[in-house]
This record gives sequence, C-alpha cells and structure tokens, in this order.
Amino acid sequence: MIKVNPARLLEDLAALRQIGGQGTGVVREAFTATDLEGRRWLARRFTDAGLRPVWDPVGNLFGLPETEKPAVLIGSHSDSQPEGGWLDGSYGVVCGLEIARAAQEAGLQGIAVVSFADEEGTFEPLLGSRVWSGELALSTLQDRTDRMGRKLADTLASVPELRAAKQVPHQLFKAYIEAHIEQGPVLDDAGEAIGVVETIVGMQHVEVVVVGDQNHAGTTPMDRRHDAVMSFVAFAHAVDEAFCSEAGPATVWTFGRVNVTPNATSIIPGRVDAMLQIRDPDQARLNHLAARAQMIAKGISAKRSVEIRTQVVAELPPAPLDAALAGTLIAAAGRLAPGRWRRMVSGALHDAVPVSRIMPSAMLFVPSIAGKSHCFEEDTRSEDLVQGCAVLSAAIETLLLPGP
Amino acid sequence: MIKVNPARLLEDLAALRQIGGQGTGVVREAFTATDLEGRRWLARRFTDAGLRPVWDPVGNLFGLPETEKPAVLIGSHSDSQPEGGWLDGSYGVVCGLEIARAAQEAGLQGIAVVSFADEEGTFEPLLGSRVWSGELALSTLQDRTDRMGRKLADTLASVPELRAAKQVPHQLFKAYIEAHIEQGPVLDDAGEAIGVVETIVGMQHVEVVVVGDQNHAGTTPMDRRHDAVMSFVAFAHAVDEAFCSEAGPATVWTFGRVNVTPNATSIIPGRVDAMLQIRDPDQARLNHLAARAQMIAKGISAKRSVEIRTQVVAELPPAPLDAALAGTLIAAAGRLAPGRWRRMVSGALHDAVPVSRIMPSAMLFVPSIAGKSHCFEEDTRSEDLVQGCAVLSAAIETLLLPGP
Repeated sequence: MIKVNPARLLEDLAALRQIGGQGTGVVREAFTATDLEGRRWLARRFTDAGLRPVWDPVGNLFGLPETEKPAVLIGSHSDSQPEGGWLDGSYGVVCGLEIARAAQEAGLQGIAVVSFADEEGTFEPLLGSRVWSGELALSTLQDRTDRMGRKLADTLASVPELRAAKQVPHQLFKAYIEAHIEQGPVLDDAGEAIGVVETIVGMQHVEVVVVGDQNHAGTTPMDRRHDAVMSFVAFAHAVDEAFCSEAGPATVWTFGRVNVTPNATSIIPGRVDAMLQIRDPDQARLNHLAARAQMIAKGISAKRSVEIRTQVVAELPPAPLDAALAGTLIAAAGRLAPGRWRRMVSGALHDAVPVSRIMPSAMLFVPSIAGKSHCFEEDTRSEDLVQGCAVLSAAIETLLLPGP
Repeated sequence: MIKVNPARLLEDLAALRQIGGQGTGVVREAFTATDLEGRRWLARRFTDAGLRPVWDPVGNLFGLPETEKPAVLIGSHSDSQPEGGWLDGSYGVVCGLEIARAAQEAGLQGIAVVSFADEEGTFEPLLGSRVWSGELALSTLQDRTDRMGRKLADTLASVPELRAAKQVPHQLFKAYIEAHIEQGPVLDDAGEAIGVVETIVGMQHVEVVVVGDQNHAGTTPMDRRHDAVMSFVAFAHAVDEAFCSEAGPATVWTFGRVNVTPNATSIIPGRVDAMLQIRDPDQARLNHLAARAQMIAKGISAKRSVEIRTQVVAELPPAPLDAALAGTLIAAAGRLAPGRWRRMVSGALHDAVPVSRIMPSAMLFVPSIAGKSHCFEEDTRSEDLVQGCAVLSAAIETLLLPGP
C-alpha cells in the first residue's frame, strides 16, 4: 500500500519554490538559469528516489525506474510564465517524485516521472511534450526564437546535459497521468478538492478583420459612415448573443485582442483587427460556433457595407482522455474525497494533450484559490495539495498491482 | 462691381500647391520650411495686391489695406496636415487675395486677408486664431512642443518676421468671412456648389474606462467573467442604439480610439480605454447625449459587475455664426447658384470658431469630391472653386457698398 508522505511532498514543493522565487511566485522561464537550476535539483531528487535522470534532445527531463515492464509516467512541467505561480505544473512533477518514492517504500516499482520542457511557450507552447510525442519535429524548430531573440538551437546547444541526449522511447511507458492545479475557479467555488479531467477542450481561433472607410469624424454624416469600430461592436455583440443561446455548458469565447486603425479620437476608424477564440470539448460544436460567427459577419458586412473577413487561423481538436484511467482516478477520489470531487473539462491546454495521442492519459486537478494562476498570487491550500497527491497515488497503486 | 478673375484665382492656387507639393497633395506643416515659404509667397502677393503684409507674434500673416475704416477680413489658414490636401484652408486665403485684388480693380477698398498660423494643430489646433482672438494666451504655450519635440517658443523665435511682430488690433476689422472646402460629402452628393454655414458644431469628448477582471481565457467559465472588451461592446452597442433614436439631424458620434489591455488572444481583457466623441450644433443636445452615455455606462456596469468610468474630458461649445452675414452669403448664393446651395452645419472646426467670439463671422463651403480631405486625394472641381469665390465676392461687395 503506497503511503505518500505529506511533509515530504510539501517540503519538496517549498524547496522548488525557492529556485527562481520572487515574492510569493516564481520566475523560471524555460531554459533560463532558474529553470535549469530547478530541473537539475529535480534530477538529483530523482537519483535520491532511485530513478535514473535522463534528458532527451528537446530538454525533457525523465526520472526512469530500473524496471523492464512499461512504467506509469507521472509528471507535468516545472517551467513558469514570465511572472508565474509557484505551483502550476511543478505540482504534478513533485507529486510524481513523491509517489515514486512512496511506491518504492511500499516495495512497488514501475513509476517514472517527467518534467516536460517549455510548456509555457517561451519558444513554443507545450514544446517538450509535442516534440516527444512526435507532433512537432525538433529539426523544424531550430530557428525559433524566444522574446529576447535567442535561437532554440543555440539554447539547447548551451545545456551540457543535452549534448549527448537520446530519444526516450514511448514504449517505456504504458500510461501518463498528470496532476495540475485547476487554474480556474470551479473547484474552489464549489468547495471541492478533486477534479477528474475527462476531456481537454479544443480551440478555434477566428481572425476577424473589419475594413471600413477611414474618414473625418466631424464632417461625415452618420448615414455616410462605414465605421470599422461600430461594425466590430455590432459583430461582437451579435456573436455574444448567438453564442449565449447556442453554446454548451463548457463553451467559452473571448475577443482577447482588438486593434483599431488609425486609433485617433477625431477619425472614423478604417480598420479593426481582432481575434475570437472559442474553446469547447466538442469538435462539432466548435465547428458550428466558428461557422456561426462567419455567418454573422456576412450579415453585418452586408447591412453596413463594410468588409468583415473571418478566417479560422488556428485549430486544435479536443483531446478526450482515457476513460478507463479516468475511472481509476474517480474510484480513488470517491474513496478518499467522497462528495468533494467532480468530473471536469479542462479549459486550459496541458502536456497531457499531445501525450494522450500516443498513450492512455489522465489528468487530475486540485483547486486554485479564487481561480488565480499565471500570477504571483497563485495558491492552493496545503490540505488540497496533499489530498490530490493521495488520490493520485491510490489510483496508481491500482495500476501497478498485478491484475486479477 | 467686383469681378473676380477665375484664371488668376486658379493660377495662385496652383502656385501655392507647388510649395511643399507632394504628388497631388501638399506637406506644409505649421512653421516648417514649406509652410513659411508658402506664407512668404503670400506676403509678396499681398504687396502686389496693394495690401501691407503684417505678421503678428504667433505667426498669423495679415494683408492690411491702407484704409481708415474697419475692413472685412477674409481668410483661413495655409498650413497643412502631415499629409495634406492642396486646398483645405489655402482656398479661403487665396479667395481673400483674389477678392482684395478684384475689389481694388473695381475701385473698392476695405478688404483685408489673413493666413492664420497652425490651424492643423502642429502645436495646438487653431493656434493662431485662438491666440489672436484672446482665447489662448501665447505666454502659457511657450513650452508646447510639436511631434519632433521642438518648442513653440524656439520655433517662433527662429522666424525673422516675428522678432518685432506686434499685435494686430481686432478693431481694424468689422467682420470675418472664411471660405473653405467642405471636407465632407454633403454638397458633392447633392450636386450642389455652395454651403452657407450657420453654425459650427460643438463637441464633447467622453473618456470611457472599463475595468474588468483580467483572467485565463480557457479556465474561466462564462458566468464568472468580467470581460472588459465584452462590456465595452455592450456599452458601445447600447450607446449607438440610444443615440440613433435621440440624436438630431446633424449629430455625429465616434469611438475613434479603443485600447485593450493586455490585448492577448488567450487572456480575458482586464481593461479597455476608449474615447467617445460627440458633435452637435446644439449645446443642450450635446449635454443630453453625454449624460445618456454616462447613464448607459452605469447600467452595463451594474449588470456585468465591471467598473465603467465615463468622464467628459474635453468640451467645446457650438459656435453659431452671424445670421446677418450668413444672410448676405445666402442672397449671393441664391443669385449666382440658384438651386445649388444649402444652409449647413460645419462638423469640422475652423478658424471662424474663435474669431466668431470677437466679431461677426461667416463661412462658405465649396464641395469636396467624394468628401475627401486631409489626404493627398483631396480635390474640388475648378468651376466650384471659381463659383465659391464669385459668391463670396458678391456678398462682400454688399458689405463694402455704403448702406442706404
């Protein structure tokens, strides 16, 4: 019977928090000194836990057990946003470390741990897990630069551990389980402790370009205007109304980026460039809503004699996770946190998305206080951190025990 | 009987167009080499026309007749936007020059001409006419800079003509008449030749600041959002609907400037900064509409639990022009362009606004092809340029002749 050690879990989380710590948060952008220091600390902890630290060519750090049979891979990422929270992916990595240790103490083998590289997108979102899963080829990304203009190829070449790094075969693992903070308010609002993620949402980015007539804001009568801002306002308002009635329970939509040209008080705007992001666990609904936005654009465009171009410029299909693995997590949650867990959809992307395409994968959420994440205020109550790790380890125990 | 010379009018307009000419437009920003070259050319033309060129301390250039009685002042400005049209204010200045000449040829005295400094706002919109009329004190503007960082005081000091410049007393003039291109599409659309301006609109700038909650666009459910962009969209949409039913025939309103923070695809915007400009010839209606926008902001603010701050940050009262002078222009237009003139409101500001506060003032518009202005494509048909000057001179003749 695996028994995780709450004090050891929290001590390791606190130790990692010191590396790149800033106020209550952390600054550990991928491949910076603090990120590498954090992951070298992890490598030593892996060794202490009887796991062999292995770096792969894109900088993923695995802790591999000395077993022949495929292992259960537990992990997430330990890099942060430019101003990151102390838990984020680190929680999942340290959970893996603690469960591997606790399993060995219980005489069980077969747990591997991973810290995927650059989940936060210093060079590319989910870089490490997407390259490892084969979704992206590292050879095509050599010239990719970070916001300082540093090239990915040069960055990787500067890390001694990566010089002789080899691929880590997928066949070493039979499943992937990722624990993560929710980064949203649902569990905290409901006073619940565990979310079992059944699907990670898909996403469509609809680029919206409104081209009207730039003109003098004083001398152009209202009935002669083709105002790009007012047309955008009419479009976004109609999209919001339509989506409110046609969206599913987990749909979210956001006009996060809006740029007005020329953006001067006395000039009727000639152009608006905006991005509509739609997320939903159901591909058919994503397609329907994106098409609906395009239909609305046509209507407003005709009514106001402006041009509204809409185009899906990025698309990511929903990632349904493994039902049997989720069932194992649900069984453990039901036992250890009765009435305080729920099935969830993840509205954020995680390393589990690419990994789920190559092996059965599952995810577990713990609450984020007030739903805050990607900021220094990000936090989770200690008892919830411990509870999440306990549920995860109970589920994994089931997976490690020989079947009937 | 004053008879303007069409060829001479068009030749002078063409000559001025060469100075700072670029493509079909002109680049004569206030106090640049091309602006000063243009106005020195004007000064010589004034002399040729028997007018004494006189610069005042802020750089206004007057052409003064050698008469004792108060003169009729005709003019506008000859500076341009950074990429300006060839007519704009130059039309009014050259009309004044031609009418002064034609009047002298007809044995009539008493016409003065002016090119006001920096109407286009290199340092301050309507700088010359506002300082001359006493609305602005030049002493308070010494540190004002242009977009190159050049100080107004240094700029004025570098113009030799201004070193010993003295005030030009208001008492030298009994009335001001400004001809200008319409800069809007109304006359051109209607196939008309003359607009007699009865009022220049007033303006209110309502600053709009929406403060919501910046948050993760994936993990924040729709019912937990306080999205600044969607709140702005709802606000602007409601303002547009309310104004459509409550506005007057000449009201215009524009959200020309909209800035979103942080303006990233995957982040629910936390803040929108926008400016609503309202123009109307009626002060009561301006006040009503600005108050209406503030009321709508309160409603949306309460409904969406966001903060919407609205504040009138700039305000300019409407400038009703002199009814008797307008009547004189109307009589001349009715005679020379029967059925092809109209009474108008000016949606743009002009030097006539400050001047109208110190003496009876009037304005006459000629058509702008397709309503275009403040761009290189700005143009007016030659026959319309000539017609406008003829109507102006006919009206002025009435003013110069001894009364009954």
